Amino acid sequence: MAYHSRSHKASAPPAPAQHGSGLPYPVPPNYYGPTSYGSSHGYSDFPSGTHPDVIRSFQMVDMDRSGFIDESELQRALSSGYQRFSLRTIRLLMFLFKNPNDSLKIGPKEFAALWSCLGQWRTIFERFDRDRSGKIDSMELRDALYSIGYAIPPSVLQVLISRYDDGSGRRVELNFDSFVECGLIVKGLTEKFKEKDPRYTGTAMLTYDTFMSMIIPFLVS
Amino acid sequence: MAYHSRSHKASAPPAPAQHGSGLPYPVPPNYYGPTSYGSSHGYSDFPSGTHPDVIRSFQMVDMDRSGFIDESELQRALSSGYQRFSLRTIRLLMFLFKNPNDSLKIGPKEFAALWSCLGQWRTIFERFDRDRSGKIDSMELRDALYSIGYAIPPSVLQVLISRYDDGSGRRVELNFDSFVECGLIVKGLTEKFKEKDPRYTGTAMLTYDTFMSMIIPFLVS
Repeated sequence: MAYHSRSHKASAPPAPAQHGSGLPYPVPPNYYGPTSYGSSHGYSDFPSGTHPDVIRSFQMVDMDRSGFIDESELQRALSSGYQRFSLRTIRLLMFLFKNPNDSLKIGPKEFAALWSCLGQWRTIFERFDRDRSGKIDSMELRDALYSIGYAIPPSVLQVLISRYDDGSGRRVELNFDSFVECGLIVKGLTEKFKEKDPRYTGTAMLTYDTFMSMIIPFLVS
Repeated sequence: MAYHSRSHKASAPPAPAQHGSGLPYPVPPNYYGPTSYGSSHGYSDFPSGTHPDVIRSFQMVDMDRSGFIDESELQRALSSGYQRFSLRTIRLLMFLFKNPNDSLKIGPKEFAALWSCLGQWRTIFERFDRDRSGKIDSMELRDALYSIGYAIPPSVLQVLISRYDDGSGRRVELNFDSFVECGLIVKGLTEKFKEKDPRYTGTAMLTYDTFMSMIIPFLVS
């Protein structure tokens, strides 16, 4: 069974928005405002062209000017541009973006990449939240993931969505936080699988060691 | 690479204690006390021979007498006999013990099994916490898992233990809560893998669908 829809490569990052500003991520406030930033802040490690609001969000929480932030600082930094994410999502973001050599912190480069990635997820979320309720249901989640190249089987969709079932019997709906978490899980695990299935046969040979090492990092959150 | 030590079958439950009371789980308070319990409490669904303290712990939190408890009730129920577990461990326990048909609750039978399983983990923990500090380090974790049949590779041990690294540079030590979580993850994932490697070759062929469905449930916690 193919695990990617035909129109996209799984290795591609989430597709840029096809509407709105034309940017691959939402326009932060003051986007067209003053652009003095960069090395003058002592944060020359940000990629050139990083929006000043992104740098400002990082600086705001990096109180000791160490150039690195931990998970609760990341949670606060993202609140200024996005929203307060659950620690579960924050930990998953940390794990996926941090430099493998810096065990529990992220620096300017990783922060900029993470911020931009979240912008892409938000664009996708808004595209599939058709009634602008701030929530999407399981079919919309399926369509959203499909649109960026992940054709997840119904059984997988079901276990994925069941994580957010509060047991009330109501239809499960995901807010942006949960949507990002789902997206990161599907993208991260699929890419791990793909490494072991480079020819897209839909099947991979895994040793026990590989299997365990692939998965356990996803349990951080 | 073999993923089980030679002396145990992976399908076997944690080995009974080789010392102490001789029971496979710790003796709850009042074990030799009055034994009137069972159907007289309206909880006839407990397996016969269930210790009255186990039934009492369940009853204490099942306020509406529905015969089912949710995750926060489980957390409280276990506090009376063990300790207050993190919600992360509680969710993993729920997932591993709940009846697949009752989405987010567990009943008397599952509760009794879970209680007894925790007793087995506690016996193992105490055996490897040689200095009685209430904590074990990574080598003791490795030895503890090995003693019940799981020979986890060093790379897996490392990712597993890194979940509890607080970034302070100090040696990582696990309390009982984290130990149970580690144990459940290793046992659960290894058993999933074994289902796909029934001849113990150390390698399994997995489809994408199977791979994803095997793992996502472990991300509940």
